[in-house]
Amino acid sequence: IAKEVAKLLEMKAQLGDEGKSKFVLKTPKGTRDYSPKQMAIRERVFTAIITCFKRHGAEVIDTPVFELKETLTGKYGEDSKLIYDLKDQGGELLSLRYDLTVPFARYLAMNKITNIKRYHIAKVYRRDNPAMTRGRYREFYQCDFDIAGQFDPMIPDAECLKIVHEILSELQLGDFLVKVNDRRILDGMFAVCGVPDNKFRTICSSVDKLDKMPWEDVRSEMVGEKGLSPEAADRIGQYVQLHGGLDLIDQLLQDPKLSQNKLAKEGLGDMKLLFEYVTLFGIAGKICFDLSLARGLDYYTGVIYEAVLVQQENNHMEEPVSVGSVAGGGRYDGLVGMFDPKGRKVPCVGVSIGIERIFSIMEQKVEASAEKIRTTETEVLVASAQKKLLEERLKLISELWDAGIKAEMLYKKNPKLLNQLQYCEDTGIPLVAIVGEQELKGGVVKLRVVATREEVDVRREHLVEEIKMRTSRS
Amino acid sequence: IAKEVAKLLEMKAQLGDEGKSKFVLKTPKGTRDYSPKQMAIRERVFTAIITCFKRHGAEVIDTPVFELKETLTGKYGEDSKLIYDLKDQGGELLSLRYDLTVPFARYLAMNKITNIKRYHIAKVYRRDNPAMTRGRYREFYQCDFDIAGQFDPMIPDAECLKIVHEILSELQLGDFLVKVNDRRILDGMFAVCGVPDNKFRTICSSVDKLDKMPWEDVRSEMVGEKGLSPEAADRIGQYVQLHGGLDLIDQLLQDPKLSQNKLAKEGLGDMKLLFEYVTLFGIAGKICFDLSLARGLDYYTGVIYEAVLVQQENNHMEEPVSVGSVAGGGRYDGLVGMFDPKGRKVPCVGVSIGIERIFSIMEQKVEASAEKIRTTETEVLVASAQKKLLEERLKLISELWDAGIKAEMLYKKNPKLLNQLQYCEDTGIPLVAIVGEQELKGGVVKLRVVATREEVDVRREHLVEEIKMRTSRS
Repeated sequence: IAKEVAKLLEMKAQLGDEGKSKFVLKTPKGTRDYSPKQMAIRERVFTAIITCFKRHGAEVIDTPVFELKETLTGKYGEDSKLIYDLKDQGGELLSLRYDLTVPFARYLAMNKITNIKRYHIAKVYRRDNPAMTRGRYREFYQCDFDIAGQFDPMIPDAECLKIVHEILSELQLGDFLVKVNDRRILDGMFAVCGVPDNKFRTICSSVDKLDKMPWEDVRSEMVGEKGLSPEAADRIGQYVQLHGGLDLIDQLLQDPKLSQNKLAKEGLGDMKLLFEYVTLFGIAGKICFDLSLARGLDYYTGVIYEAVLVQQENNHMEEPVSVGSVAGGGRYDGLVGMFDPKGRKVPCVGVSIGIERIFSIMEQKVEASAEKIRTTETEVLVASAQKKLLEERLKLISELWDAGIKAEMLYKKNPKLLNQLQYCEDTGIPLVAIVGEQELKGGVVKLRVVATREEVDVRREHLVEEIKMRTSRS
Repeated sequence: IAKEVAKLLEMKAQLGDEGKSKFVLKTPKGTRDYSPKQMAIRERVFTAIITCFKRHGAEVIDTPVFELKETLTGKYGEDSKLIYDLKDQGGELLSLRYDLTVPFARYLAMNKITNIKRYHIAKVYRRDNPAMTRGRYREFYQCDFDIAGQFDPMIPDAECLKIVHEILSELQLGDFLVKVNDRRILDGMFAVCGVPDNKFRTICSSVDKLDKMPWEDVRSEMVGEKGLSPEAADRIGQYVQLHGGLDLIDQLLQDPKLSQNKLAKEGLGDMKLLFEYVTLFGIAGKICFDLSLARGLDYYTGVIYEAVLVQQENNHMEEPVSVGSVAGGGRYDGLVGMFDPKGRKVPCVGVSIGIERIFSIMEQKVEASAEKIRTTETEVLVASAQKKLLEERLKLISELWDAGIKAEMLYKKNPKLLNQLQYCEDTGIPLVAIVGEQELKGGVVKLRVVATREEVDVRREHLVEEIKMRTSRS
């Protein structure tokens, strides 16, 4: 018997496996659906961001979700391995876009545009290790604002910082800080520290890890893996711990080594100008010049920045603790030229808002609060008090729709009044328009306010006006 | 010499080719970028559609751009070959979504939702032969509205037709007609005409081609390629030329053969109910019961519909000519059950608005009209009348932004006033706030109305209020 049972169990297990392998009901790894409630929160965040972009006079563009594979080649350095490729089904080789910046540069070169201020909000794709609870996905939104064109130094750059400041203030995510640095200052620093030219980019990648790793680990990566001399690494170590404001810029402009380097001097001069402009914008208090900021991407050529949320520790004397980047960007003057057949350059500076992390925080805030989020905008439910009134409900709701009123009804021939009222409670519909035999005879509709249970008879010809008045959009 | 020249020319040709093959500056086949002007038109169309969906109480959801390959398998019949697959880079096998209906059904089954009214606007992907001038792309938007749940017959179905009617009326695309049919009527018709059961779907595909091919060609496809008997084909031919309204439904309910078929009788009964409801909605005049409507997709189970624009020929006595489908949909009661491990069914009905064709028409209309489309919403340009006023401009524009005014400035240290005014003319900015030395001394700003060239001095502390008043959103 035991043998038979074992056999049966094995058969059952096999069947179970088969049943499972038939349908795996899930979204792909690192992706998610958005429920109506999540969409309601997402739309709030988008509205705040788009309103800001429009306040700054930006146009909007859109590009395809995939690009020719070669369009993306050679733009992302070490990160290129994270690009999603499409299967070769005959025809062109395609890849999903990795960010919105490279498609933007391709768009400018292709259409010979030398001057534009645009935003672009769309999903991008990275085969990264997802950490979804912390808002890191393989499919995620980017909200990019960029200014392209030959302009006087640091004016558009300062506007990008103002935009970050406006958006993070508006969304009330808590205290934040915008770190700024300049690729030219970094390169100058590498030069005076004795980093060989061909190691600039890879050492820059190591510096970029300072927000996640202590200096000792970064140093051993530089010396051990990347073959930098310990002396050069130590000299870098001295610089990258510096952060401050105008005072630090002036100090470095006096630095005997750095002040002799042409690139570093240019970068420091522009950084001074940037601080002047953000002071005029009244936002200098949140801007911090930080020599450890490097940013991963290859294409930056000038100022770079990254906004982080800071959490005040309970012990109020400690330094603020960073809880993660929510926006970043910088200047990339060479990228458009990489696409132009004649190499014509279009200087660009831009900022990308890290919407997924912001969205995660907003979602937690809503969960923690007592706020009940509505997922529809319905103003009135068309209901009936007795049976056999489906036709009357259809006629009335049609009148309301045609007058622009947001209206619903239950898809039942004879719904109970209680169920109809309950539906309003559940979904937050504020008004009920009730048709009954008596009302039909009298040429009126009973309008009920769900919150107060107040009921008034409204003449049919005044109903639209009355509803608009009560939803205060007359 | 001739030999040398030939050699040089060959070298030049090679270099030319190399130069070309380096950068192909294009978007992938069948895709396009949207310029700011196109986006402005697109947003108008979206706003009209979303407003309608919200008026009908719909929630909104979003799903990833790709799904597990097996999620899409077996849902699209002959069209499956048009699905874009992602490259196998290790991990799950993925495909780009082909429509929004299958991801919706997967979402319902995965979250065990049995009752929802939602819309979803997103791009879908088909490796079809693009015909971009006629609005057929490989990447294109779908705007879907669906009602899922167990309800009394034809009430949600009628609402879908009302929605199509509202949207096409609102967009003023010209005259239109919504053809309706029912898969059960088609299947009943096939049965009584003598089509073998296993040929229903493939004969249905042939009928679907009647909007593009004459009956003779469809008939020879049925008989020649698909092996149907000529007699059965001729019997089908009799039915599929029928179209009309309630009268036709009653006629078919009396049809000696069709009225004996259970499926057809059910379908005809529901069709009668549908006409009753759309009559109550006041839209019956645009609805046409058409036995030749079949629709390609496998998953429909009941009523199906398709909206076409009709062009009145010059000769006013001719029948209206169809210029293409702009919306379509139907009932699919079995699709969610295909994803549910226990096969639990969730009846669904929905409609998809064919936004690309609509967008093409709108774009042509705008081109043909004298209308100048603004691509930004900027209300005021902050300008200076003399040199050395960059700091004052930065201070003023910052004040305006912080007060919620949409403002721009030129990114020049010392722009000429004429260039600043010209920028307003070019981009449609209605107001200019001019700072000059005299104004600064007097504590005022000169506000200029671009259209009338009227100029007034406004006290700095009243400027925000004055601008809001003049852009009529105080």
